[in-house]
Amino acid sequence: MASKKNKLKVFSLGGLQEIGKNITVFEYGQDIIVVDCGIAFPEDDMLGIDLVIPDFSYLVSNKKRVKAVILTHGHEDHIGSLPYLLRDVECPIYATRLTLGLLEGKLKEHRLDKVDTICVESGQTVKIGNFSVEFIAVTHSIADSVALAIKTPAGIAVHTGDFKIDHTPVNGEHIDLQRFAELGKAGVDVLLCDSTNVEMPGFTMSERSVGEIFEQIFDGCQKNRILVASFSSNIHRLQQVVNSAVKHKRRVAVVGRSMVNTVRIAQELGYLTVPKRVMIEPNEINNYPDNQITILTTGSQGEPMSALSRMAMSDHRQVSIKPGDKVVISASSIPGNERSVSKVIDELFKKGADVVYEDMMHVHVSGHAKREELKIIHALVQPKYFMPVHGEYRHLKMHKELAVEMGMKKENVFLMNLGDVLEIDSKGARLNGNVPSGQVFVDGTGVGDVGNIVLRDRRHLSQDGLIVVVLTYEAATGELLSGPDIVSRGFVYVRESEELIKEARDIVKKVFYSCVEESNYGRMHLKNTIKDELKDLMWHKTKRSPMILPVINEI
Amino acid sequence: MASKKNKLKVFSLGGLQEIGKNITVFEYGQDIIVVDCGIAFPEDDMLGIDLVIPDFSYLVSNKKRVKAVILTHGHEDHIGSLPYLLRDVECPIYATRLTLGLLEGKLKEHRLDKVDTICVESGQTVKIGNFSVEFIAVTHSIADSVALAIKTPAGIAVHTGDFKIDHTPVNGEHIDLQRFAELGKAGVDVLLCDSTNVEMPGFTMSERSVGEIFEQIFDGCQKNRILVASFSSNIHRLQQVVNSAVKHKRRVAVVGRSMVNTVRIAQELGYLTVPKRVMIEPNEINNYPDNQITILTTGSQGEPMSALSRMAMSDHRQVSIKPGDKVVISASSIPGNERSVSKVIDELFKKGADVVYEDMMHVHVSGHAKREELKIIHALVQPKYFMPVHGEYRHLKMHKELAVEMGMKKENVFLMNLGDVLEIDSKGARLNGNVPSGQVFVDGTGVGDVGNIVLRDRRHLSQDGLIVVVLTYEAATGELLSGPDIVSRGFVYVRESEELIKEARDIVKKVFYSCVEESNYGRMHLKNTIKDELKDLMWHKTKRSPMILPVINEI
Repeated sequence: MASKKNKLKVFSLGGLQEIGKNITVFEYGQDIIVVDCGIAFPEDDMLGIDLVIPDFSYLVSNKKRVKAVILTHGHEDHIGSLPYLLRDVECPIYATRLTLGLLEGKLKEHRLDKVDTICVESGQTVKIGNFSVEFIAVTHSIADSVALAIKTPAGIAVHTGDFKIDHTPVNGEHIDLQRFAELGKAGVDVLLCDSTNVEMPGFTMSERSVGEIFEQIFDGCQKNRILVASFSSNIHRLQQVVNSAVKHKRRVAVVGRSMVNTVRIAQELGYLTVPKRVMIEPNEINNYPDNQITILTTGSQGEPMSALSRMAMSDHRQVSIKPGDKVVISASSIPGNERSVSKVIDELFKKGADVVYEDMMHVHVSGHAKREELKIIHALVQPKYFMPVHGEYRHLKMHKELAVEMGMKKENVFLMNLGDVLEIDSKGARLNGNVPSGQVFVDGTGVGDVGNIVLRDRRHLSQDGLIVVVLTYEAATGELLSGPDIVSRGFVYVRESEELIKEARDIVKKVFYSCVEESNYGRMHLKNTIKDELKDLMWHKTKRSPMILPVINEI
Repeated sequence: MASKKNKLKVFSLGGLQEIGKNITVFEYGQDIIVVDCGIAFPEDDMLGIDLVIPDFSYLVSNKKRVKAVILTHGHEDHIGSLPYLLRDVECPIYATRLTLGLLEGKLKEHRLDKVDTICVESGQTVKIGNFSVEFIAVTHSIADSVALAIKTPAGIAVHTGDFKIDHTPVNGEHIDLQRFAELGKAGVDVLLCDSTNVEMPGFTMSERSVGEIFEQIFDGCQKNRILVASFSSNIHRLQQVVNSAVKHKRRVAVVGRSMVNTVRIAQELGYLTVPKRVMIEPNEINNYPDNQITILTTGSQGEPMSALSRMAMSDHRQVSIKPGDKVVISASSIPGNERSVSKVIDELFKKGADVVYEDMMHVHVSGHAKREELKIIHALVQPKYFMPVHGEYRHLKMHKELAVEMGMKKENVFLMNLGDVLEIDSKGARLNGNVPSGQVFVDGTGVGDVGNIVLRDRRHLSQDGLIVVVLTYEAATGELLSGPDIVSRGFVYVRESEELIKEARDIVKKVFYSCVEESNYGRMHLKNTIKDELKDLMWHKTKRSPMILPVINEI
């Protein structure tokens, strides 16, 4: 029920002061809508973790009130954690056609095929409870991306989603700048805007500029195969590769699971146009001369199990790199992947391939708005309040400064923490309280069962390995029945350490007998004393601190 | 003894097809000289490893023949592994004054203060056995760097060491391009040349250009403290900070162990000039107004234990970051460090600091020659043969192509593996055999005791942790005396896994009794069966593969 007393509440459970797992929640009265539901990739010290997802506990506690999840586009950092939310929260999903297409497989994999999905398109407005949500076309590195205008009686929010201003998009729609202006003119209370590239001056180049570089590369490659590695979701990039291939009378083979999937979905839905007989199967590659072949592949981040890495290591079932192959890595390295990308490039060179990567030619452009583009959105929307989203702290801070430079009052910009609640009503906007938020680790099928203690142990084990000490004694008499046995893993190579292990065994024996002598041979006391003594010995002898795990059996 | 039959042999034990641990060996007749002796930093998958050093076994087996180690400059990747070589090989060290100054502390730390060090300067030539070695001034990101002309009756080699062509160096000497030309004119048989920046077109900017940016930054900072983080060894960079500080009437405090050490050594040796009363102790910082303070610090790579990281985390004993502090990160991120640098920058922003880094302003220049500079060296030296050094495979390959583009015959360029021996005599040059080479891991005080098996175990432990299963039984009867006990670390949080651990215990019991029933309860058989069954259970239940360590006691 709409009432004059109701407020619009806005908060993020992900994507503030971090990169990834984007999710923003809008509340009005009893109704909740969720915008995006993404994953983040684990940091270097999150050993063994597969994915990081948001803490959904607020949404789960209020699951009856959640009316919808709305997706702005189909990237993993915006849709990847949705299956985990849907385990506990039942609601319809609103998204554009391609986004739903990409989501479908994911839902199937998680046995969530009964979820209610509603296909929308840019320009459309839907009523969801007390919300009215309008979808606005934007350009980004994946087709069918939208921004949102979210209207409630207490105020209007505009959420850009991820975007850039590309005036010459490949296929597909232009960003609807007029609509941003119209909304702005009518009055927007709060703008939520992508901060990813706020550090970068100027404008992001058009996706089409990459197509021009592809043309140069195809023109210059008369004899050899051309392989292009890219993000599979960048369908406009794939379209440009296909266009150049067609123009140069080359066939296109697609390799790598996610690339095969996306190409299939994008073709089925009409987002990728490939003339007949251009596509061939990977096992047909050798039926054509090299200069009639283009291969689209995954692996632009140097992931060791990806198609490109396997090809480089001669470990791919269907394709091996051969001398003269032109390999284009059409992506930039995500921070943390630089070394593995460099390794793959080096392996490709060793196989005699001619590799083109970002350092050498402009074979990639970003999908995010740089400073001058951000300014245009601010100038068009002219919101009362501004909440920078999608970025580390420094990005949000710099985005705040950008808005202030453009004339916004400092106090009208909200640089928020995860879970901080922004409240908007006729009297204005303010921070008011917060909801639970955080990181939940996914490891294998386990969600949240790996916490900080487990990670601390993994880090400890990864640095210096472990030593297990086992002994069995008679509780009544203190007689040593078996052991002490010492087993080590990840510590030192056993043959090198025979002397050390013998010394360790002697120390454990000494500790045991002296405890028995003092009639102080309880398991806990024995364990702790053995641990302390062995720790000292190992540090003294090796300057390492392996984990020490005494296993004491009383019989 | 020089003889017409003797050949000049050249090979690398480090720095070919890898970044770091640079070391090149020259042999003529019975005499061996070693050029540089560096470390490499461990890769991401070398868990717990502190340093990587070369395999010195060839030099150790021929230690009587090793006449000298010659150092081109004082960077860790050129001098860091020398203490490990000197454990087994006794010979004098030739280097310039600053290089020896930086080496001194390292030798002391390893209790090698009795090593014979010989101070040389550019322009000088020394006779070492059948070798004559000339030191040629070059510019690089550390002062007192030299290239070498190594003369033998069988041929002349020129080794550039690390260099750039800086025509306006800060203090210090120009690169002696005339001498390269003179040597070239007289005839050089083989050139060994730095390949680090061969991917980069154009020229590297002069170090002085960074000084101009510092001036802008100091000019623009009227009220606040200025902190500059840089590599401590880049003494010209430090000099430029000091110059700007003096000009703007600021004091300079030095923070961070390696920064304090280098500044002390550089001042003592006259490589860093600081007017009287400019230097202050860190504990005096608060005696001055903020706009009279400059702080030179370590931590430009985001190392968690470095001064800058600690300041950012409010964990430094002497300095805390405060709002308004201007922090200049005057370095580029070494591949692999991007994430930790980004984390530190973010923490600094959170403390309210105004951070300037390479993405925003040119506060750093490389110390290595780019393509146009490399071409100048090739044009001046015009060697008969060329051996690209210091780079991954792709760098060596691109450097080869650069030489070939300039007119060199393909077959006269040797793109070598570690240990490959290049042999030069009056008849020409050829590859002939190889010597042992590779990586040796240093972990704590252990050198080489952590090998691939230990690393494999550490990786396994880091991903999924471990499960230890302990049981004790009577050998004669097959009676279970104690256990099975199950202990896990780094696997799942124990409370979450109670059910799972109970299930595991039941399975182990079942395995034990069925083995006893079949009278097949040897320790080996029990161990393997328990391992297999638990592995299946854990994968089925959690999609994880913890290490499983059964400890079976027979009594």
